[in-house]
Amino acid sequence: MARSLGELAALVAGEVRGDPDREITGIAALDAAGPAELSFYTNPRYRAEAERSGAGALLVAAGEQFAGRDLLVVEDPRLALAALLELFHPRPGRPAAGIDPRAVIGAGCEVDPSAHVAALAVVGAGSALAAEVVIHPHVVIGAGCRIGARTVLHPHVVLYDGTELGADCVVHAGAVLGSDGFGFATSAGSHVKLPQLGRVVVEDGVEIGANTTVDRAAFDETRLGAGSKIDNLVQIGHNVRLGAGCILVAQSGIAGSTKLGEQVIVAGQSGVSGHLTLGAGARVAAKSAVFKDVAAGRTYECVEGKKTLG
Amino acid sequence: MARSLGELAALVAGEVRGDPDREITGIAALDAAGPAELSFYTNPRYRAEAERSGAGALLVAAGEQFAGRDLLVVEDPRLALAALLELFHPRPGRPAAGIDPRAVIGAGCEVDPSAHVAALAVVGAGSALAAEVVIHPHVVIGAGCRIGARTVLHPHVVLYDGTELGADCVVHAGAVLGSDGFGFATSAGSHVKLPQLGRVVVEDGVEIGANTTVDRAAFDETRLGAGSKIDNLVQIGHNVRLGAGCILVAQSGIAGSTKLGEQVIVAGQSGVSGHLTLGAGARVAAKSAVFKDVAAGRTYECVEGKKTLG
Amino acid sequence: MARSLGELAALVAGEVRGDPDREITGIAALDAAGPAELSFYTNPRYRAEAERSGAGALLVAAGEQFAGRDLLVVEDPRLALAALLELFHPRPGRPAAGIDPRAVIGAGCEVDPSAHVAALAVVGAGSALAAEVVIHPHVVIGAGCRIGARTVLHPHVVLYDGTELGADCVVHAGAVLGSDGFGFATSAGSHVKLPQLGRVVVEDGVEIGANTTVDRAAFDETRLGAGSKIDNLVQIGHNVRLGAGCILVAQSGIAGSTKLGEQVIVAGQSGVSGHLTLGAGARVAAKSAVFKDVAAGRTYECVEGKKTLG
Repeated sequence: MARSLGELAALVAGEVRGDPDREITGIAALDAAGPAELSFYTNPRYRAEAERSGAGALLVAAGEQFAGRDLLVVEDPRLALAALLELFHPRPGRPAAGIDPRAVIGAGCEVDPSAHVAALAVVGAGSALAAEVVIHPHVVIGAGCRIGARTVLHPHVVLYDGTELGADCVVHAGAVLGSDGFGFATSAGSHVKLPQLGRVVVEDGVEIGANTTVDRAAFDETRLGAGSKIDNLVQIGHNVRLGAGCILVAQSGIAGSTKLGEQVIVAGQSGVSGHLTLGAGARVAAKSAVFKDVAAGRTYECVEGKKTLG
Repeated sequence: MARSLGELAALVAGEVRGDPDREITGIAALDAAGPAELSFYTNPRYRAEAERSGAGALLVAAGEQFAGRDLLVVEDPRLALAALLELFHPRPGRPAAGIDPRAVIGAGCEVDPSAHVAALAVVGAGSALAAEVVIHPHVVIGAGCRIGARTVLHPHVVLYDGTELGADCVVHAGAVLGSDGFGFATSAGSHVKLPQLGRVVVEDGVEIGANTTVDRAAFDETRLGAGSKIDNLVQIGHNVRLGAGCILVAQSGIAGSTKLGEQVIVAGQSGVSGHLTLGAGARVAAKSAVFKDVAAGRTYECVEGKKTLG
Repeated sequence: MARSLGELAALVAGEVRGDPDREITGIAALDAAGPAELSFYTNPRYRAEAERSGAGALLVAAGEQFAGRDLLVVEDPRLALAALLELFHPRPGRPAAGIDPRAVIGAGCEVDPSAHVAALAVVGAGSALAAEVVIHPHVVIGAGCRIGARTVLHPHVVLYDGTELGADCVVHAGAVLGSDGFGFATSAGSHVKLPQLGRVVVEDGVEIGANTTVDRAAFDETRLGAGSKIDNLVQIGHNVRLGAGCILVAQSGIAGSTKLGEQVIVAGQSGVSGHLTLGAGARVAAKSAVFKDVAAGRTYECVEGKKTLG
């Protein structure tokens, strides 16, 4: 497939600086792109690499200058890139509808005929899979789970009983949703388990990374708000609530009963203590430890220097 | 099921302040409980929520005042809560005894007739499963493992060869016990593997969280003491020894050969360096880095402020 | 099997101080070794334990003194230990060649006849497994993957489509290679996914720990250099490049597009931010947060003390 730079500009509401008739056949990184490819400049660290790139054209933000180069200028190059990647590199098709005979399906499940359930997947009794759901091999879905339309569960995902996912979610390999929250009452050195009676609810459009863990609530729900994006190896404790559009980066952790408003960002390896509130738009910098509420829109960067106490 | 507040008080050695004849049909969180439900007040952060709760009665510690409310007063509300939850919300029954024909059982295994082995579980040669063990789908048990009575392995748990678990343990989904310790000898830039010849031994009553990893010993044993509770995504290195009743919170890590006495608490995202000793009752605060021994009963809070060296 | 101390010395280019005819039948840790066993002294923390050890002889570095004990003196005791362990404790043999009939093999796979594919493993269409590869139960290999000779994938490893591993690699249980990198473009509160079109390439001789995650590149490759050793629960972001012989200790994380030279060491629970370069031989101390490039050969120890901003 080839498109002219001008056609691409129309697609992403951009403007060509240079030759609008230049033919583009694909998108590639700065150091790999050739004269028929579009590359992108989105981070000033890569200025020198952009200047010496062999790319036929560069996707850039307004205000960027690259003398003697064809440019496709847009307001938000990353957003335009997402659209152009979908154009040039369409995602592979869904696997065929149907339940592989080597899958194990419990009694009373409702599996939409357009759903795909791969070999060696396990679906517990009474669970419901909506239209175009994709269940990869070795997924284990407990009893009484509900999975919304077009949601994809990659291999080895585990949903404990009663977990609910909305539509258009993606859960990556090895993620565990609905395991018991970590609750014990200690008596004379013995830790007595507090039964964890709640569940996990994931709203529409959430993506969850590989080997991430989300605990079921002690009561009620642990809830991940619509459109939230959660990276790999993240821990989400029982009764946590994420508002819509939160971003939790790899290896971060949110302890039990903490509430995040909408659009909160928690950067990599940060931890947020339990029973806190982070207001809408709050941001936590990488490797931080948050022990207090954070007001809406504030940025928290804290690795507190502490010494031996006690 | 309904019980009067007075009956509940008798069950947990508590005392009613208010109407002992009030009928209770269940237990719920403060913001969800109705007039026929008991809720609980265990954390002063939730004072306002407790005051406006619609709960018919509150479970509280001695000394708490809530004017005009029926109270069930006990010495330790969390401990009483555990008992009352078991009463009102009994755990679902064990799955039926027997080995699913789609499980893969190696030669020479001893599986007690009361044990449950689910579809697509794998049990290696010569392993022994005691009475009422529950093996969920997709668990992989290596050769020569021993699993004590009533222990439950959730989906996707992996036990490497020779791993031993006591009675009444719970291992959550995706946890890996017995993978090789991280030991290499470096020679001229090449890292030569030190074979890891030991094993993992888990004593009775231990609970292990989702996607947690426990490495086998280089020699001898990595050992988790009886009644210890380990949260999700925790790393336990080779030759670590935990005393009885330790608590390791999510994303914490214990490096190789470190010894913890009884009842040590390591809070979330903390790390303890290798070859150290933490005495009985030591506590490590969240996000700490422990590079020295901690004496029995001491609390360690340390995120050391360090700068570029070298 | 018994060998004299003198024979062992010849094998590891060492020297006997004491009785070269002492018979050794095995190797054991200091506190477990008996008079027919060799133990080893490699860490001064264990001086007292070495002195009171019941071992028949000790493997030590040149310059160490233990009066009245038979010693096997070598330049690098850990390296010698690796060789002697292979002698006395040879690794268990490979499982038998062949594909278990309960495995699921996609169309067009090339599986070398000497490879072992266990029950309930899944190999996607068009994947290639070289000689003596070992695929344990419940491994899921996507489409179009390539696995080099003698590489071992432990239970529950997941390779997404297009992942390539070299020869002589070991991947421990639950590790996920090739899951999507964490890339989104945000527009009016909505996080639009940037398709992740690249792949993961693992060079020869790499070992990867349990439940570690390695994301596929946005474009091109995430690449792990030959002989690198990666511990458990490590996160490696998209487009990361590791040079040969890197060591990443448990729970460390490398954010996207960061490049490590050869022989870089990142200690436990450390995080390296994205788009950085760590020169050859750089070392990052435990629990550090690296936000800047580190020059070759430098050591970085930094848990910066930061306060609330913004």
